[in-house]
Amino acid sequence: MNGMEDQLVDWFKSQARLDPTRFPIGIGDDMAQINLPSGGSVLVTTDMLLSGVHFDLSRHSLDQVGYKAMACSLSDCAAMASRPVAAVVAVGLPAGSDPDQLKLLHRGILKAAQTYDFPLVGGDMTVWRQEDLLAICVAMISIPGPYGVIRRSGAVVGDMICVTGRLGGSIHGRHMEFVPRVNEAIKLAGMVRIHAMMDLSDGLASDLPRLCKESKVGAVVNATALPISDQARLSADPIASALCDGEDFELLFTISQTDAAALARSWDDPLPITCIGQITAGSDIKIILPSGTIRDLDLRGYDHFERK
Amino acid sequence: MNGMEDQLVDWFKSQARLDPTRFPIGIGDDMAQINLPSGGSVLVTTDMLLSGVHFDLSRHSLDQVGYKAMACSLSDCAAMASRPVAAVVAVGLPAGSDPDQLKLLHRGILKAAQTYDFPLVGGDMTVWRQEDLLAICVAMISIPGPYGVIRRSGAVVGDMICVTGRLGGSIHGRHMEFVPRVNEAIKLAGMVRIHAMMDLSDGLASDLPRLCKESKVGAVVNATALPISDQARLSADPIASALCDGEDFELLFTISQTDAAALARSWDDPLPITCIGQITAGSDIKIILPSGTIRDLDLRGYDHFERK
Repeated sequence: MNGMEDQLVDWFKSQARLDPTRFPIGIGDDMAQINLPSGGSVLVTTDMLLSGVHFDLSRHSLDQVGYKAMACSLSDCAAMASRPVAAVVAVGLPAGSDPDQLKLLHRGILKAAQTYDFPLVGGDMTVWRQEDLLAICVAMISIPGPYGVIRRSGAVVGDMICVTGRLGGSIHGRHMEFVPRVNEAIKLAGMVRIHAMMDLSDGLASDLPRLCKESKVGAVVNATALPISDQARLSADPIASALCDGEDFELLFTISQTDAAALARSWDDPLPITCIGQITAGSDIKIILPSGTIRDLDLRGYDHFERK
Repeated sequence: MNGMEDQLVDWFKSQARLDPTRFPIGIGDDMAQINLPSGGSVLVTTDMLLSGVHFDLSRHSLDQVGYKAMACSLSDCAAMASRPVAAVVAVGLPAGSDPDQLKLLHRGILKAAQTYDFPLVGGDMTVWRQEDLLAICVAMISIPGPYGVIRRSGAVVGDMICVTGRLGGSIHGRHMEFVPRVNEAIKLAGMVRIHAMMDLSDGLASDLPRLCKESKVGAVVNATALPISDQARLSADPIASALCDGEDFELLFTISQTDAAALARSWDDPLPITCIGQITAGSDIKIILPSGTIRDLDLRGYDHFERK
């Protein structure tokens, strides 16, 4: 949370001074929202993936890379309970790329798009002067889902903190082929009143503080409640893995205790939902360890500026 | 025109099969247009710039890089006579970047945005594992201008072919600080009926065939009429330079002969407009050389796949 990246986001936010009548949601949420003069609104997000950082050209196929790039942006659409309508993709290809490689990348892009029934409407391609480099950048346009747009900033003291799926160990493969929770987010928004939501891209220990900061609340997480993935269970410290590995691309959301009880009774989807803690007053983010000890949740998730 | 890039764009286009009621303009124009369920429409474009290809980290400052990235996308907005409303920017920064460098890049981005009175609403940042790499990708959202959206496909046999500004030699500096013709495009669209328009990013010899192909027409260009830039005049072959250097980011458009005469009388802007040729039947793209010889305009502009 104290990472360079968060400080920079704060700085960008301070520079933007967006007119809230035109831009109800700006820098600092999963997508920005633009109100149009013609009525209605669109949301937009962008994600850039780099070889050697988000994927490994020697291990991952180009269709995996194309799929992951789209899925990352789709996960942002999910975070707002919005509905993707179109994407554009820009690629900086390795020197010496041939059209077949680009078509393979395109296949991965389309696989993600077709799953959610929206098209690739444009793009840009250029070629690096080096053979080992690939950059791919997706910009995704969505519209509010049937239950409106959900922000990070609406968490209320006493809310239950929930996550979809299982956390940690994504690097062992899931990070290239995860399913963005677009449909599940809209389904959830239709069943309960979600107060705040985001997607887990950098790990719960980095992302929960962001949600809490936007909502001006604190949180307490119960370590024994964390839904730890099978891969994370094999690590030296499964709890740290679930908190910090990043690239889970699951939903993190808060709902009232009544809604949490209702959801526990009525959620019929194969995707598990787990209550992992509660929103508190103040700004402290705490974790109750299996020993019963309470400590600050200050383990850092993946911070692009600190890994360099 | 026979470049790999154009063939790939054709292939992507064939794969997209966009519903024209939802996506009136798709792959192959300067921007894609998305009709929204709530009414109205937005346009979107994306451009990725790479170190060592579109700029040189040893010669260009980061605010120049930020400015250029935005200006390239703004030039696409101009090509459609559309009005920019918001941008998102993703960056892959050199390893070891510090916040001050990112702020410098941000300054260049904002300079371009503030000139056209729209905000940066979001972004993404990540860091390469190498120190000499920078990728920056802009996605720009615009809305139709007051005179509607202008496509590449409306050129009519007999139209005059016009360009703004002067061509060639952009690499000597103009390519980092050009002024995208956003305001001029809308002004032009209010004065005459523009049949087809695009921006000159790869050079007239590459871009005019693209406009002609979309319009299913041919063209003849008069070499002596070309508005050759002062920088291009210093090159060994000024005409080739004006045709092929690329990164002019001027407007290329076609209008009726009557409108061309009207424009010649009434255009009062400091930016010059020059009629450089005429739209013809068929599909041949010809050039009349200063000697009077007619030949195919087959000099290639900057083709990212052929320069590798």
